[in-house]
Order: sequence, then structure tokens, then C-alpha cells
Amino acid sequence: MARPDAWRLSPEAYAFVTTLDTRFADLDTMGHVNNVAISAMFETARIRFHHHMGRHPQEQGVRWMVAAVSLNYVAESHFPYPFDIHCAIGHIGTTSWTISSAAFQKGECVATCDTTVVTHGAEGRRQIAETLREAMQANFLKQPG
Amino acid sequence: MARPDAWRLSPEAYAFVTTLDTRFADLDTMGHVNNVAISAMFETARIRFHHHMGRHPQEQGVRWMVAAVSLNYVAESHFPYPFDIHCAIGHIGTTSWTISSAAFQKGECVATCDTTVVTHGAEGRRQIAETLREAMQANFLKQPG
Amino acid sequence: MARPDAWRLSPEAYAFVTTLDTRFADLDTMGHVNNVAISAMFETARIRFHHHMGRHPQEQGVRWMVAAVSLNYVAESHFPYPFDIHCAIGHIGTTSWTISSAAFQKGECVATCDTTVVTHGAEGRRQIAETLREAMQANFLKQPG
Amino acid sequence: MARPDAWRLSPEAYAFVTTLDTRFADLDTMGHVNNVAISAMFETARIRFHHHMGRHPQEQGVRWMVAAVSLNYVAESHFPYPFDIHCAIGHIGTTSWTISSAAFQKGECVATCDTTVVTHGAEGRRQIAETLREAMQANFLKQPG
Repeated sequence: MARPDAWRLSPEAYAFVTTLDTRFADLDTMGHVNNVAISAMFETARIRFHHHMGRHPQEQGVRWMVAAVSLNYVAESHFPYPFDIHCAIGHIGTTSWTISSAAFQKGECVATCDTTVVTHGAEGRRQIAETLREAMQANFLKQPG
Repeated sequence: MARPDAWRLSPEAYAFVTTLDTRFADLDTMGHVNNVAISAMFETARIRFHHHMGRHPQEQGVRWMVAAVSLNYVAESHFPYPFDIHCAIGHIGTTSWTISSAAFQKGECVATCDTTVVTHGAEGRRQIAETLREAMQANFLKQPG
Repeated sequence: MARPDAWRLSPEAYAFVTTLDTRFADLDTMGHVNNVAISAMFETARIRFHHHMGRHPQEQGVRWMVAAVSLNYVAESHFPYPFDIHCAIGHIGTTSWTISSAAFQKGECVATCDTTVVTHGAEGRRQIAETLREAMQANFLKQPG
Repeated sequence: MARPDAWRLSPEAYAFVTTLDTRFADLDTMGHVNNVAISAMFETARIRFHHHMGRHPQEQGVRWMVAAVSLNYVAESHFPYPFDIHCAIGHIGTTSWTISSAAFQKGECVATCDTTVVTHGAEGRRQIAETLREAMQANFLKQPG
């Protein structure tokens, strides 16, 4: 669990951005947004990013499942300010891919999240469809500078 | 985000175990326990493990903060069956440590979670107290066999 | 939203009891279990109570939906102590029924919850099956004394 | 738990409106937004409404606590569409008040929520401050027509 590279904290690295509300119930006893709630916001941002790429799992009769999530908390975040979550594709494999994302509050990066998703059909893991692969390549993570 | 080593899926690797209920609200539209809910269960298990080691952050006037969480989903999990969450210390640094844990349902490993915690005092990061370090060493992760 | 009658705060009024864990994520910035989290615990207790009465909606090809929830918070509740949630049937109509419940922590009532559930078939609301009605009558709320 | 009056399902009845995102984690196995998640959205809308009235509990050294919540589910609601939550003051007592609110999705009322809040100082319940009472009166629920 190495700290994220500095360029991962820059909005320019990402192809897509979406804004999400924080909720009072996201706060914990330390008065900041709890890391589990941040995880729920990254999940919704990821689904919006998948919609943006023109694919929705249920339209395809295929199941997409989360295989791994790796979160780094960079700074404390607060209610009631919204999160801007930037997303890009960080890796494309044969049957899985990684969404790399970063959350910002008031312009400051508060967390990064890398999520590995695998795709299953009726007979287990299945290859990523070619049209989806092309959409992913068009939204790839870019190291700025 | 490499897959966890096979021995990490064995209860024998861990020093501590605790049982947690699943909730109906943990389920998502795919009918399994959502990965965000699993994250909330690992969080509570981690706090119980810290209590077990005889330390509670608020007793010490020191803030413990989560710096990173890395989750691997190994198998689908279901409601209403409880989770048995096994925990151990996976790493001890100067100002931070890692809790390595694994969740089981009906005896099968469904997920692993590694959480890095850092300790802060009034002047920023502070060294781990010696008594806490000893308690952690007594609860270290063990590769079975 | 009148306060609950005093006898509703007594465990003896209820036919069924189940125990549920509190989670760290249930806490809010006031340091007590948040009312939304309490609502999630009542929901899971209600499902266990329905199982206890021998009925599960999905077994019947019938949809059960929550129509109304009325919660009263009687005392502050805390982590990490579990909740004992007592449930009974408070009302049986033609197509709907009410689960009356109360949550206790360390023997003290912390909240009550009344939930109205309606049953739907393919053609809209449907009558409660006779065997379910009998099971409900056997688990009716009882004013002690 | 009587059904809400028809005029409570009209946006015109309310003094204040705010928009909140739904999250994927809000869905349950029936594919609709879970009633507990709706409760969390009403809570955040309520806090925004309190800010709108110019009062925030922590600024005043006074604790505001939820005493009761009564929810009616009017129609099923869905992800990823946002909620428009309309709020007004429904009742003002000596030490407590009620926020009456209704949630809309795509212009249709999906739920109503009445929340009773009580105000506590160091010596228990305390009277509502006069300036807050005036702000509440200016935001009172209005039966349209």
C-alpha cells in the first residue's frame, strides 16, 4: 500500500469528472467524512463513469463484479461540501480492468481509489467486448507534464 | 492490486477473531453483500481488535487515522449469514501500522482487507507507544505451515 | 407523532427478540448511534421476525413493501454495545400489517419503531394469506399487566 | 400511521427545496432505493434547511436531537436519478419543532417525512430562541389552494 504518486493527485490525469453530495450520515465521531462513506461515493462515481463510456452491465446480460478496491486517504474531508470525483481507466486486461480515480473537495485532493472490475458471463469470466475496450482506451489515465 | 497469497485465506494466519451481523441494507441489486458494506464490517472488526490489544485511541489523547485500505473480494457473500472476521498486525512502522484481516462466511473466505493506520498527536504524526508496539508484536500475522 | 405509551418500552410486550451488532460507521458527530443507522437495525430485526413466523416474501412469489415507518428515539444509544430488538405484530389489515418493535441497549429502551408492510402480487395489492395471518396472530403485541 | 394528506404531496406546500444525489449503495435487492437510504437523504435535506434558516446547532452551544421520525413511502424511487427534497416547518412547540418534508423524483412525490427535533442545553431541554422561532414561522408549511 504505497502512497499514490504525486501526479495522481492532479485533476488533469483523469478523463472524466462528476460531482457528488456528502451526507450528514457520512460523518463519524472524528467529525470528518468516514472512509467507508468515501468508498460509497467512489462507487457511484465509477458507475457514472461506466455510463459515460456508453456501457451498462445490465444492458449486456453480463455481470460486472468488483474484485479489489485500494483507497488512499490524502487529507480529511468534511460535510456539507460536495466531492468532485475524477475517473479514468488505469489498466485494461483480458477479462478485467481498473478504474483509477481521485476525489477533491474545494480543489484539494482528499483521496484516491483504484478499483478492479471483472466481467462474468454465464460460463464464468469473459473477455472484454471490443467496443468497450475502445471506449476504455479513449478514457485512459494520463500522467500530466 | 495483486491477489492475496493463498495463506491469507486461512483463519490460522490471524491472532484474533470476531463475529459481525450482516444487515439487509448491506445487500445491493446483485443480491450479494455490497463491497462498501463489507468495508464497514472490516472497520468495526478492526476497532474490536484494537480494543482486544488493550488500546483505545480516545483513552490516550491521540488520534488514529486510516491512511489506506486495500480490499480483495474473493467470493460473493450473502445475507443473513454473519461474518467471522479474523485480524492480525501485518506491519509495524514508526508512526503507522497495518491491520491484516480476512472475512469468512460459513467457513469460506469471502474477502481480505489490509488497513494502514497512522497515529497523530497535537504536533502531527507521533511514534507508536512502546506498550502498544509490544501488544502488536504479540498479535502478528503468521504464515501457517 | 405522539410519544409511545410507557408499556411499549417494556420487553414483555413483544413476542420475539433478536440481537444485532452496532457498527462504528453507525456513529455520528454527536458520538451516539445515528437515527438512520437505528432504522437499518430495525429493518434487519423485522426481516428476522418475518423468518421466525415462517414466511419469506421471495418464497411466495409475492412482493412485500414498506409503506410507512414511524420511529421514536427514547434515549441515546452507543457503540460498541449490541441492540436487543423486540418485535411483535401490532396490527393486521386486509393487505397490510404493522410490525411494532423496540430496541434495548444494556436493558434500557432506546427507540421504538412501527413499520407498515403491504403485500403486492402481479396485479397489485393482495390479501394476506391465511397461514401468514395465523402466524401473525400468534405473535401479536401484548400490553403487559 | 395514516397516509399523508394529498396536499402534502405537492411541492407548493413547502418553503425550501434542495437536491440530493442517490447512490448505488442506496439500492436494495428489490432494485429500488431502500427506505433507510431515503431516511439518510431526508436527514441531510433537513440540515440544509436548518442552515437556510440561519441557524446551526454547533454555533449556539446547544444540542439538537431527533426525537421522532415518521416516513411514508408513496412510490418506488430509483438510481441514478436525484431527489428534490422540499422542507417546511410543520409545528413549533416550546422546546421542540417538526420539519415536514417531501421527496420528489422526476417531479413525482416518492415519500414524505416528518421529523421532530428537540433542543437541549447543559440543563436539559431548553426553549427555542426567539430569532429561531421567527425564522421558523417564515418557513411554515402551507396547505395550497
